[in-house]
Amino acid sequence: MIITLKKNTPKEEVDKLASQFESQGLRINLSPGENYVVFGLIGDTSRLDDRTIAANKWIENVQRIAAPYKLANRMFHPEDSVIDVAGIKVGGNEKIVIIGGPCSVEGDEPLCNIAKEVKDAGAKMLRGGAYKPRTSPYAFQGMGYEGIKCLNHARDLTGLPVVSELMSADKLDEFVENVDLIQIGARNMQNFDLLKAVGKINKPVLLKRGLSATIEEWIMSAEYIMANGNPNVILCERGIRTFEKYTRNTLDLSVVPIIKEKTHLPIIIDPSHATGDWKLVESMSLAAVAAGADGLIIEVHDHPECALSDGAQSLKPEKFKTLVDKARKVALAIGREI
Amino acid sequence: MIITLKKNTPKEEVDKLASQFESQGLRINLSPGENYVVFGLIGDTSRLDDRTIAANKWIENVQRIAAPYKLANRMFHPEDSVIDVAGIKVGGNEKIVIIGGPCSVEGDEPLCNIAKEVKDAGAKMLRGGAYKPRTSPYAFQGMGYEGIKCLNHARDLTGLPVVSELMSADKLDEFVENVDLIQIGARNMQNFDLLKAVGKINKPVLLKRGLSATIEEWIMSAEYIMANGNPNVILCERGIRTFEKYTRNTLDLSVVPIIKEKTHLPIIIDPSHATGDWKLVESMSLAAVAAGADGLIIEVHDHPECALSDGAQSLKPEKFKTLVDKARKVALAIGREI
Amino acid sequence: MIITLKKNTPKEEVDKLASQFESQGLRINLSPGENYVVFGLIGDTSRLDDRTIAANKWIENVQRIAAPYKLANRMFHPEDSVIDVAGIKVGGNEKIVIIGGPCSVEGDEPLCNIAKEVKDAGAKMLRGGAYKPRTSPYAFQGMGYEGIKCLNHARDLTGLPVVSELMSADKLDEFVENVDLIQIGARNMQNFDLLKAVGKINKPVLLKRGLSATIEEWIMSAEYIMANGNPNVILCERGIRTFEKYTRNTLDLSVVPIIKEKTHLPIIIDPSHATGDWKLVESMSLAAVAAGADGLIIEVHDHPECALSDGAQSLKPEKFKTLVDKARKVALAIGREI
Amino acid sequence: MIITLKKNTPKEEVDKLASQFESQGLRINLSPGENYVVFGLIGDTSRLDDRTIAANKWIENVQRIAAPYKLANRMFHPEDSVIDVAGIKVGGNEKIVIIGGPCSVEGDEPLCNIAKEVKDAGAKMLRGGAYKPRTSPYAFQGMGYEGIKCLNHARDLTGLPVVSELMSADKLDEFVENVDLIQIGARNMQNFDLLKAVGKINKPVLLKRGLSATIEEWIMSAEYIMANGNPNVILCERGIRTFEKYTRNTLDLSVVPIIKEKTHLPIIIDPSHATGDWKLVESMSLAAVAAGADGLIIEVHDHPECALSDGAQSLKPEKFKTLVDKARKVALAIGREI
Repeated sequence: MIITLKKNTPKEEVDKLASQFESQGLRINLSPGENYVVFGLIGDTSRLDDRTIAANKWIENVQRIAAPYKLANRMFHPEDSVIDVAGIKVGGNEKIVIIGGPCSVEGDEPLCNIAKEVKDAGAKMLRGGAYKPRTSPYAFQGMGYEGIKCLNHARDLTGLPVVSELMSADKLDEFVENVDLIQIGARNMQNFDLLKAVGKINKPVLLKRGLSATIEEWIMSAEYIMANGNPNVILCERGIRTFEKYTRNTLDLSVVPIIKEKTHLPIIIDPSHATGDWKLVESMSLAAVAAGADGLIIEVHDHPECALSDGAQSLKPEKFKTLVDKARKVALAIGREI
Repeated sequence: MIITLKKNTPKEEVDKLASQFESQGLRINLSPGENYVVFGLIGDTSRLDDRTIAANKWIENVQRIAAPYKLANRMFHPEDSVIDVAGIKVGGNEKIVIIGGPCSVEGDEPLCNIAKEVKDAGAKMLRGGAYKPRTSPYAFQGMGYEGIKCLNHARDLTGLPVVSELMSADKLDEFVENVDLIQIGARNMQNFDLLKAVGKINKPVLLKRGLSATIEEWIMSAEYIMANGNPNVILCERGIRTFEKYTRNTLDLSVVPIIKEKTHLPIIIDPSHATGDWKLVESMSLAAVAAGADGLIIEVHDHPECALSDGAQSLKPEKFKTLVDKARKVALAIGREI
Repeated sequence: MIITLKKNTPKEEVDKLASQFESQGLRINLSPGENYVVFGLIGDTSRLDDRTIAANKWIENVQRIAAPYKLANRMFHPEDSVIDVAGIKVGGNEKIVIIGGPCSVEGDEPLCNIAKEVKDAGAKMLRGGAYKPRTSPYAFQGMGYEGIKCLNHARDLTGLPVVSELMSADKLDEFVENVDLIQIGARNMQNFDLLKAVGKINKPVLLKRGLSATIEEWIMSAEYIMANGNPNVILCERGIRTFEKYTRNTLDLSVVPIIKEKTHLPIIIDPSHATGDWKLVESMSLAAVAAGADGLIIEVHDHPECALSDGAQSLKPEKFKTLVDKARKVALAIGREI
Repeated sequence: MIITLKKNTPKEEVDKLASQFESQGLRINLSPGENYVVFGLIGDTSRLDDRTIAANKWIENVQRIAAPYKLANRMFHPEDSVIDVAGIKVGGNEKIVIIGGPCSVEGDEPLCNIAKEVKDAGAKMLRGGAYKPRTSPYAFQGMGYEGIKCLNHARDLTGLPVVSELMSADKLDEFVENVDLIQIGARNMQNFDLLKAVGKINKPVLLKRGLSATIEEWIMSAEYIMANGNPNVILCERGIRTFEKYTRNTLDLSVVPIIKEKTHLPIIIDPSHATGDWKLVESMSLAAVAAGADGLIIEVHDHPECALSDGAQSLKPEKFKTLVDKARKVALAIGREI
């Protein structure tokens, strides 16, 4: 951590600060500049709060050098983490994993039909929301536990592990029992009580990036889960909020190489929520694979125009199949497999 | 709702759509354009999902005309709502309410001291976080229930109602019993299960705007609380996330006249979180009052450089007092009082 | 164009508006709703100013249905435009074009060396800035006309057409004479006088997206060039400004399918400026090719750490060669060639 | 400047870097950390390019400590600059200046009428665009030189100095001769050739903030003008681009105290472009005055619904008068005058 003090900082203030940090076990390197006095802190600064340090009126600027995350940090864990989701391996040099299914579970038969179709097309997991975070209180809120039972049934039929979103810690047991990959949605990325809750179980967690979360904040949310004891975190980019109006969100594919450089966790891409438009999903899926993503999670619906949520971004099963076939070729071109 | 169909849409598709909407009790007005066919839906469209309608391949565009909120909508509730917080009235032509206190409760004595100081300076409520949403799992997470007890003590001493953030529905009873104004933080603005929970009680709720929430989404979150039965919502702007780096967030004061035009709810401003810098707090507080805000919520700490969180944005009590005195004059200049 | 009037709009105001639009040759379709009166305008609305219409106090909302661009609009020009840059064809089903070279021209010998290296690696054009837009007046501002002469020399040696940025219309003749593809930089995307100037020549123009330009504004800037007489426009995405701090800008690859849907113009990607970090350039280049881009423009420098500008985002020639080889495989996987 | 090197950087690389910086007249302070080696540069670093330094593969991070601007920097020029615009003083403790007038000059008589009205209401300068930057090539582009002549006439009649936007350096003489305060628009804030051109004259320049310019970039654009010889710069905030859809832009009033802290230049606010909605202009104007702004520039039009541009954000003269009267009271409340 680098602290910049105003040039005219009285010597006693500098000394006070120095002894304050030394009492916390840090070493100090003082470097007087032309217009500033610069102060380097050496040691473990992850518990320091830079915004509190900055409250000192002699301090011009506080700059963190070391990343604030440790367990997720590749620097201290150089090899890739491979996460096992009911037998399907995600990350490292494993096959790129395709996850398909409807935005919301809408009934047992429709879900089982889609499950078979996405499996035939090449999907390795089934997605489907039973509890739905909706902007409007008047919109369909999901089937709840009935939806979870449909997911169970679809898994029995197809063998596909299932992914579903957990919105509240009071449903944790239900999810631990029934869901193979527990999704924390974008709107809950900084619902820290929920992060702590899924940190205390052992099931894999799919952590979506918040709508306006920086990459660092996103990794810190993974760190919350890991620091509470659960190392099985898969990150999922789903677009960030920008000023652009032609897409629902802006898909930020640069996270793929960045997450791989900064962390050892797998990263998958959700082109459906990112773009909000099924016409853009294939192109962004191929791009994600070429960028090096470890998986794709894609919305598929037999009758998008009758979907209970987000029809605009759902692919029909035959388009999904075409997409997977094309993605397979792109994967081979970069030396991976689907 | 206005639906634009592609020019070459087959007549049977147009008819199918028309009868689909008519079966939902809506009337249709068809208007053939040069390059498009335009389709107006008349009636209550608040339950329609525009993104599902948009999935139809003949549809170019779906545009909502009526606002998606009803209970919060000034159109259907023209007079201002005035919310009563343990005897302090907020909104309408009531006095502008000043809320002061530390970011986090850090102990009984320090809190009681600050409580007395902010009361002397003119504050009408005391703020203080007992449960703290922190980006890092390694940062101070708040005193929890011990902090709530300190707030109770400080209220007993000063008579100031207390404001504190609820992060999880499982603490709802604790808050209903002990806290006068229950804050839903920016990171939980779309934690819909938490919104539903506070919708089922009767205590006033302070709903902060999400970091990247549009004004419409924010009002929709208020609508969640109201639709579940609790009409006592106060909105709080605390800055939005932009590309700017000199401030922590960008304070969006245009929400003040907009919230007053679109809704009947009170709106208060948090200049401390918005700017992240105590040096900017006074200027933004005066601006908020001049813009017409119904209140201010400001962080105050005796020793900001020793605060356990967010010291950089905390004012010392004497600076807070100066601010309130200046704000009083600005309030008078626009015909209000503090 | 759809105009929404307040419900209580007096009949004479509705009639006045109607006759005003009819006098401009538009037809009107009136549709009374529950809370609003909706008003459809049929005919060519591209000359109407929606923000002036919205000034009428009875009008709640103005919504454009038809895109405001015509010459760039695929609706009126279904086949792909292929732009010829000194014999190199860009767009349609032509080969994907790789453009390489330094951020700034720094001297004749270094430029000619890089030119040979990028050609060997597979580049089909050479980039190099002679006039540089720099945030700081104290930074290197480019070699000016001397740099243009170096580009000429490098083209003579290698046969590669050259791309360079025009910052001011008073250098237009110099560029028409010496540069094969005239770049309009992101900061000048809405320098309308410059757009008009390059609209009056016949040379191909590479139009970069502005730092915070919506896709529609960007297409409108292309429309400026085309409406002034020059149809030879190639669009170039170079990242947009967001809140993210780990990258210089956020590369928005969804523009590739969108530009191809909305317009008939070629689209190329600049991963160097988009990311600002050479370590991310390869991954984003492969993604761009997979997404369907018509070309890549990449910064290459022999000694990035000695570059006079933007060294952080420049690839060394050998890394550039590796990138082109990998991109070639991805191109084949999606049925194209480099 | 603080440079962070990877921990395992070979000693010869550290030495090479050190001697490279020393040869540029800088002193070095080396500080070995736990995971990094930190390297402080002491001396004038304003000519160093941090992005080129960052290209070195051993370097993890480059952090500028001193602000990159000098002439605009309050650190080196503690007293406020007061800019004289044809006798009207702007900045420091001078009266807050109100500028009113139409978005575009639309004819001699309408302009002269508005000029008289804004003067009566209390305006001290007249605004009016003769050359208009419009997103669409099909929109009204301004009256050009005829508009400039109208401005001249309106000044003769009223005595109000005139403000107008310069879009291209080839009109500089026309503006120097006829315009009292030369505006550089948001879209040209980084049109560096235009900045250099107005840097070579002596007339005051009103420099608008770019749509997505950071405060630092904006000050750097002022620095361009000042470094070229013209110290007469007034900064103007006009809203930044964000995700919010209820306003055209987001007005960032925190710039007022920040510009006053970091620079010695005057800062005025344009609430009309910032909000894009006349209903929000009064509230934001009062907020700007309370925040400490040195002036307001506001669009006024007799018949907004017939304006040739931006009618939606124009106030009628009587509303403008009310606004100025209210602003006067707010100014007095904070100890200033209008």
